[in-house]
Amino acid sequence: MGEFELIERFFAKSAKRSDVVLGIGDDAALLTPPDNHQLVVTTDTLVEGIHFFADIPANALGHKSLAVNLSDLAAMGAEPRWATLAITLPSARMSWMEQFCEGFFELAEYYNVTLVGGDTTRGPLSLTITAQGVVPNGQALTRSHGQIGDWVYVTGFLGGSALGLKHLQGQQKLTSEQRSTLLNLHYYPQPRVLSGYGLRGVASSCIDISDGLLADLGHLAKASGCSAKIQVEQLPVHPLVESLCSPEEAIALALCGGEDYELCFSVSEENKGALEVALSYSGVHYHCIGQLVAGDEPVRLYQGKEDYHLSGFRSWDHFYSS
Amino acid sequence: MGEFELIERFFAKSAKRSDVVLGIGDDAALLTPPDNHQLVVTTDTLVEGIHFFADIPANALGHKSLAVNLSDLAAMGAEPRWATLAITLPSARMSWMEQFCEGFFELAEYYNVTLVGGDTTRGPLSLTITAQGVVPNGQALTRSHGQIGDWVYVTGFLGGSALGLKHLQGQQKLTSEQRSTLLNLHYYPQPRVLSGYGLRGVASSCIDISDGLLADLGHLAKASGCSAKIQVEQLPVHPLVESLCSPEEAIALALCGGEDYELCFSVSEENKGALEVALSYSGVHYHCIGQLVAGDEPVRLYQGKEDYHLSGFRSWDHFYSS
Repeated sequence: MGEFELIERFFAKSAKRSDVVLGIGDDAALLTPPDNHQLVVTTDTLVEGIHFFADIPANALGHKSLAVNLSDLAAMGAEPRWATLAITLPSARMSWMEQFCEGFFELAEYYNVTLVGGDTTRGPLSLTITAQGVVPNGQALTRSHGQIGDWVYVTGFLGGSALGLKHLQGQQKLTSEQRSTLLNLHYYPQPRVLSGYGLRGVASSCIDISDGLLADLGHLAKASGCSAKIQVEQLPVHPLVESLCSPEEAIALALCGGEDYELCFSVSEENKGALEVALSYSGVHYHCIGQLVAGDEPVRLYQGKEDYHLSGFRSWDHFYSS
Repeated sequence: MGEFELIERFFAKSAKRSDVVLGIGDDAALLTPPDNHQLVVTTDTLVEGIHFFADIPANALGHKSLAVNLSDLAAMGAEPRWATLAITLPSARMSWMEQFCEGFFELAEYYNVTLVGGDTTRGPLSLTITAQGVVPNGQALTRSHGQIGDWVYVTGFLGGSALGLKHLQGQQKLTSEQRSTLLNLHYYPQPRVLSGYGLRGVASSCIDISDGLLADLGHLAKASGCSAKIQVEQLPVHPLVESLCSPEEAIALALCGGEDYELCFSVSEENKGALEVALSYSGVHYHCIGQLVAGDEPVRLYQGKEDYHLSGFRSWDHFYSS
């Protein structure tokens, strides 16, 4: 089977949105954007040995590679619409591709995202997805409009994905039930797309947590010209992380573990009421963890009224030379 | 230097179009598309050892990785506007990145393309670019609207890039002047963006030649439900290919060598006059090489009135198992 038949067979089966004039099969895709909307575009690469182990289930890889991109769109308050997938594979294994596509298209169809372009190449396994969405003019959420005094929130629970990873690395024993819960968090992150819609007009700034809360909130605070004051006792640590780890380790995983793909956002005092209504639609848990204050330090940690010191942990950074 | 500083330092220096509300630096880019236009989106990956040798000049790689994507946009008649770049690198070498960016941004700025997103990862060298353009509603060129009786054209000259590659593979001796000309074609393909604009409303179908004229014209003919009848003596073989190769090899390189990144398109009898006006603006050479006819065979080759048989050559296909 040649490359072209491979692409046709696996990638052309995406359901086609009505705004997709031409999908896969021409030199480029042809799309009709809605009037009075802006485009939101993001791209993410996953590389074997860096972002996932060689033995990751293909279905999980299909899900996760799209989910991390949809998470970025969610952080902008965008409605996801289209994606392109560039996949580099050591060989064209049919059963692997079938499972990969199953994971990819299940998530794509849930959010009505059409795969509109692809490129298939032979080489070391890696995936690059570019996802696009739209947002009504002027309503996008950004990192940079947080104000001093705004409250800092985070959706969901933190640290579960990182503890799942520790288990895969042989550093954490788990029962089969715990394993199933934590690997599900690690392999199948749920992008907070509906929360992102809800936060339009309510949150003053927003970011998704892929590199860990500490690093990503730091980016938000820096972009907003503020400092984030965080109470570690208010962090929504995942219950299994709480029960399996020491208090210090639990806080470290929640702050620096990474790959939670939750949204971290700021809300002004006067919008706190609107927030409750806004997020009730998406059914997501969310917690206030601190406040934006004046200062140069991106994030400052407190336990009660005392400074909290975190040591020995570092955020995810591929080029960090330690 | 961390990953984030690396990205900021090298990728944030792109000139910013006025329709880029947010470029690199947030979770996603925010773009304002023009009214009454459609979006054109394409993605292409280049992998070391498959698409280029490890010793390719970084400047050339920067140019070529963007050029191959702009060539796809050109084939749709689109005006390029935005690009994202996912780059996987074994290590963060500063001088290499500087040269890569020089090649990339020189071409980007020539066509007023803004880099709006990026992802930098550690791993085996590969690049995935997603390029986006716009085209007035309903004016995109496609592969599938060629009609029986339409004339088949190709821009530029063929086979030069492939002969440059043969030299790099040690299979073709060249003088230093010949080497410079042919490696320039191989490393610095010029996307036919202006020709693509000109062909809107004039060509009935269009495709870019990346995999070789024979394969790509075959895709066009198949998508249009026609067969392409090609006169090999009318092929615009590059003069150096003509002078350095046997007649058979010259024709084979022109048909199957690949990586010419010229446009192949069809024009109806009544639009032949309009074509001359349309392409005079872009100053590109173009030649009529045959005609779309009824039939099942995607491409049929003739030399004069006789069938022409090509053997021992095959188009570019990563997963072709020979």
